[in-house]
Amino acid sequence: MIDQTKLPGELVTITCRTSTEVWDAIKQLKVRGAPAIGVAAAYGVIVGLDEASPGDANWRDALATTCDYLATSRPTAVNLFWALDRMRRKAALLAGATWKDARGALLTEAHAIRDEDAAMCRAIGANGQHLIPEGGGVLTHCNAGALATSEYGTALAVMYAAHEKGRKFKAYADETRPLLQGSRLTVWELTRGGIDATLICDNMAAVVMREKKVNVVVTGADRIAANGDAANKIGTYGVAVLAKAHGIPFYVAAPSSTFDLSIPDGSAIPIEYRDPGEVRAIGSQAIAPADVACYTPAFDVTPAELIAGIITEKGLISPVSREAIAKTLGAAS
Amino acid sequence: MIDQTKLPGELVTITCRTSTEVWDAIKQLKVRGAPAIGVAAAYGVIVGLDEASPGDANWRDALATTCDYLATSRPTAVNLFWALDRMRRKAALLAGATWKDARGALLTEAHAIRDEDAAMCRAIGANGQHLIPEGGGVLTHCNAGALATSEYGTALAVMYAAHEKGRKFKAYADETRPLLQGSRLTVWELTRGGIDATLICDNMAAVVMREKKVNVVVTGADRIAANGDAANKIGTYGVAVLAKAHGIPFYVAAPSSTFDLSIPDGSAIPIEYRDPGEVRAIGSQAIAPADVACYTPAFDVTPAELIAGIITEKGLISPVSREAIAKTLGAAS
Repeated sequence: MIDQTKLPGELVTITCRTSTEVWDAIKQLKVRGAPAIGVAAAYGVIVGLDEASPGDANWRDALATTCDYLATSRPTAVNLFWALDRMRRKAALLAGATWKDARGALLTEAHAIRDEDAAMCRAIGANGQHLIPEGGGVLTHCNAGALATSEYGTALAVMYAAHEKGRKFKAYADETRPLLQGSRLTVWELTRGGIDATLICDNMAAVVMREKKVNVVVTGADRIAANGDAANKIGTYGVAVLAKAHGIPFYVAAPSSTFDLSIPDGSAIPIEYRDPGEVRAIGSQAIAPADVACYTPAFDVTPAELIAGIITEKGLISPVSREAIAKTLGAAS
Repeated sequence: MIDQTKLPGELVTITCRTSTEVWDAIKQLKVRGAPAIGVAAAYGVIVGLDEASPGDANWRDALATTCDYLATSRPTAVNLFWALDRMRRKAALLAGATWKDARGALLTEAHAIRDEDAAMCRAIGANGQHLIPEGGGVLTHCNAGALATSEYGTALAVMYAAHEKGRKFKAYADETRPLLQGSRLTVWELTRGGIDATLICDNMAAVVMREKKVNVVVTGADRIAANGDAANKIGTYGVAVLAKAHGIPFYVAAPSSTFDLSIPDGSAIPIEYRDPGEVRAIGSQAIAPADVACYTPAFDVTPAELIAGIITEKGLISPVSREAIAKTLGAAS
């Protein structure tokens, strides 16, 4: 996988050979973005099993241990748990399988998760591209692009698809403190993809909206509750409130694997709090007193009433309601 | 003066011996904060005149040249122009003065600007301290503290005055990208002043409001138009919109020298745009592709309708209106 913590300075690919290396890569955000975390975890199960070298009698125990371990890496993105559950369910179907046969079937499942993710990204792009008008502007927050998925992205898939249609527009990317996914990843990725991208500090989003530089906001999501409340990178909620105040529609782009229908609303989505050192310093450079208290939520929840629509691979859910979500997700499941 | 670009790492005092050094110190934000810029410019006039070593016949020309030059250092904070105009007006009263006598009178004027600024800060604190409730929370943006003024501050004066009354409260400071005045200066200053301060990234302000961690927002201002529209550090407008959406009152604290009654509303306030390098890097550390386009407004304008009140040394203007501003400013002038 690409080590995303090294971008945009260096394009470095790393190979994880133990489940600990996979766990660390997820925890340290070398791989990040909800769909990409799911894919990494699915392959991480194979890595963990190979490391354990289980026999025909005990590979199921090794699988359970590996899945339980990888599930502790990060708490918010539901795709992580979704992918691990899918690997567990696949294993449950392999009654009496030898370790060798099971490994083959599980690896095929991991490939399927990756390939389905790539196809879902393409479908999200196709289902949302019309939301970006010719000559318009679109704002995004964090990175929900090719780097966050198997390829093509979710929020950025909408831009790539509009771009492939020949539409001209300007993309604005919030830098997304503290870990700067917007400045490090999104503008790097968009510019390489031929899209006219402008970087702004998070606190400039309101002015960009007021000056009518953007017509639409599109972000990704890390977990969406049954009512449409959507957890995403810290700052997304503020962007949604600002969009509402400026009469600009705010969309979420996410595959159906990002929905967690077991959760009635956003209040039950667990929020990860990260190390204050990420706020007090940027890389090795201190920017605040070493002992100052920091508040460090990594995510926030945007309530469904601020979301004009959710762009999924199964269609655009708009307006957003519990019923519309159930209908769209259920239709093809 | 303290070189604020070195904080919080080092507490370094610099001495400017030429008008170019004063100009550079203002431009490079070694001295920053609207009132402090005004005081620095007033003393900068003396520095420039001493450098020119004018005779009794030509000190007025040297003064005009120095004032014109210093006025080009930064465009938005009106205190800069206010202080230079005051030095010019003082000079106009010194008919027939020798250079030696004029220098003495002008230095006395610069001292007066500094001392009046300090007294205004104390009065602002006294006039606004009641807005911070016992056990409450207050959010600020950028640095409008002792470092931004001769002493004590404007927005932070309100906190210092509440603290001196023995009131317990929590202060939240936005880090304030791109130049991080919140993380480098505000939390450093508040903590040294014994106030319980927590640093947040700019994009966390919305969640802090939603979680009811703050009851009130207080910021400074760099220029206030006759109708109450207030220019302040980029991001302030967004904070004001978010405060409104969460039912939290948003106050501006500023001395009367920050008002520019010649400007009818905020649309006429000139906005400084700074070097994109300030967004692409933090100190010497690159955080974005070197050639990425950036949008770089240093200030934004918060419309009067989002401002619950303006705390001045002459009293609290609330609700904010053209008439209330004229009345409060005129009353004691």
